[in-house]
Amino acid sequence: MPLDVSPYAGTGDAATAILSRWNSLTAPALRAAVETLHPWPARMAAYAFGWADRDGRPSGRGMAAGGKGLRPALVLLCAGAAGAPAESALAGAVAVELVHAFSLVHDDIMDGDERRRHRASVWHAFGVGPAVLTGDALLALAMATLARVPRPGAAVAMERLSATLIELVHGQAEDLAFEDRPWAGRDAVTVEEYVAMAEAKTGALLGCAAALGCLLGGGSPERADRIAVMGRQLGLAFQMTDDLLGIWGDPSVTGKLASSDLRRGKKTLPVLAALEAGTPAARRLGELLTAPLTAEGDLELVRDLIEDAGGRQRTRERATACLRRALDVLDAEGASGPAAEDLAVLSRFLVERAS
Amino acid sequence: MPLDVSPYAGTGDAATAILSRWNSLTAPALRAAVETLHPWPARMAAYAFGWADRDGRPSGRGMAAGGKGLRPALVLLCAGAAGAPAESALAGAVAVELVHAFSLVHDDIMDGDERRRHRASVWHAFGVGPAVLTGDALLALAMATLARVPRPGAAVAMERLSATLIELVHGQAEDLAFEDRPWAGRDAVTVEEYVAMAEAKTGALLGCAAALGCLLGGGSPERADRIAVMGRQLGLAFQMTDDLLGIWGDPSVTGKLASSDLRRGKKTLPVLAALEAGTPAARRLGELLTAPLTAEGDLELVRDLIEDAGGRQRTRERATACLRRALDVLDAEGASGPAAEDLAVLSRFLVERAS
Repeated sequence: MPLDVSPYAGTGDAATAILSRWNSLTAPALRAAVETLHPWPARMAAYAFGWADRDGRPSGRGMAAGGKGLRPALVLLCAGAAGAPAESALAGAVAVELVHAFSLVHDDIMDGDERRRHRASVWHAFGVGPAVLTGDALLALAMATLARVPRPGAAVAMERLSATLIELVHGQAEDLAFEDRPWAGRDAVTVEEYVAMAEAKTGALLGCAAALGCLLGGGSPERADRIAVMGRQLGLAFQMTDDLLGIWGDPSVTGKLASSDLRRGKKTLPVLAALEAGTPAARRLGELLTAPLTAEGDLELVRDLIEDAGGRQRTRERATACLRRALDVLDAEGASGPAAEDLAVLSRFLVERAS
Repeated sequence: MPLDVSPYAGTGDAATAILSRWNSLTAPALRAAVETLHPWPARMAAYAFGWADRDGRPSGRGMAAGGKGLRPALVLLCAGAAGAPAESALAGAVAVELVHAFSLVHDDIMDGDERRRHRASVWHAFGVGPAVLTGDALLALAMATLARVPRPGAAVAMERLSATLIELVHGQAEDLAFEDRPWAGRDAVTVEEYVAMAEAKTGALLGCAAALGCLLGGGSPERADRIAVMGRQLGLAFQMTDDLLGIWGDPSVTGKLASSDLRRGKKTLPVLAALEAGTPAARRLGELLTAPLTAEGDLELVRDLIEDAGGRQRTRERATACLRRALDVLDAEGASGPAAEDLAVLSRFLVERAS
């Protein structure tokens, strides 16, 4: 389902090559960090990253099998764009990927998601209590990794990371609270409320990744602030694309149940944008959403109505606008060279991916 | 159930007065920090601290009703003992109390504990998912609070805190793993394994509290290392006393179910110390523990056998030895003045308390 953002077509292979290259730098450091944990949470963390199966046997899957490794690549590339060797930001790359893994493990508990990346989620595989512990271990390890960075970088970086965690909690709280709010009427979730939630829940950590790369690469706090805006916009574009994939994505590629977001009444941008259209399709959609969606036929009708009311198109447009704002920041910073080019390729990939 | 550690008798009132005095400094800062969170986790955090009931109504209970406030008092007193105004370590006091609250909220999920401080635990009151979020919020807030401390103090303090979190996870992992290990045989949990677990699970945070107070009060990292040993020993003494209260404490004072540790086969020091005695009572105890304890009569017999085999006495002795080691550190540091005196009173209180 590539979006129409020509001339950006065909970046999938290039992006995969970039991610794979940077992940070969991050993965050993990440594994070494995880191995310092108590063996039990370490084993569950290895499962969460896709390195091992439930019994601790190596899965033969690389880091990319566990996740895209987008955030650590962003850290390293932003160090490169600041003119530093990527290695200088390695602790930041490891810390950001650990925080990402922490948030997935805990969010899956809160959301009751049984599947993650084609496998049972951590709580579903090991139980809720052990999954809580695994998330705590990943977060503690992220902090410890960053706290050991040579000063004064560590203090600035820790301040960034902790502010990001506050935002992550805020975004997750909003996301969960949205589930209890109605689709229509005065208490309905607005598109703008959604965007604020997505910026906290997804944008903040990509912004943090970009800022940490810049800071650990020797960039000034002011430059880090600007480059963080790029990361935040990329995070928004990423989340909006996720929402599209959650409704129209191929379950065999995304690893999630088809239309799982619709099934449990999750407030995502395509639906909210459709509802705000005020067209007959939007009104019919609003009526259908008042009852839980269970029948396959209902799900299909809802998908069609979202599309008819323009929800799919408007979400694509917003994702593309976020992507352009991100690329504008990169331009304005005068970033050039291989790192900046890779950043541009990765950025485009975020809205073109199929999983 | 005061222990016989004369001439330290009668410190309860003095300790309560000290805690109450320091908590009047910490409480407003702690509340102000919690209020910066998203309103939903903020409300659950207020419940966790005992400030509000389940519906968010003020409980009319002070901070001390939620907990003793021992850790923040330790931070402030160690700043005082380093010759600084207590206020200089206020951020450390707030951060440490937030981490403590985080660990209680998440541990109660992992341990399946339905009660905490005479009320439903957070997960029992609000659900598991919201409790995971509350813990995450408390931890994020702790980090953010400490990260904002003026540099270079922040970097050293964050390194301490993050190393402590790694230890907390380690201790909690061991504690949970102990539950699946047998009481007897080659895989039995030893007293020394127990002490290592308790040092990580409880000692580390009290050690961190002492070190943060010292550091934020301008003490050198070397002095902070030494004063951390005092905190760790106090933590061990505290945990051992907790174990005694978990078996022989008055449920109406402790707020926990009578013999709740025994009911669920928790490996605590009095039981482990009794089992290692090798006496007939120890052997009879080992036999009884092979089956789950449900009948009141069984529980009473088990309590008596632990006492007969010397488990209660040896636990008291070890707690008292830890207390003396802590006081020796205080002496060796040449700490004097009101802060040092208050530290000594508080330390003794830890092994004499009834709840």
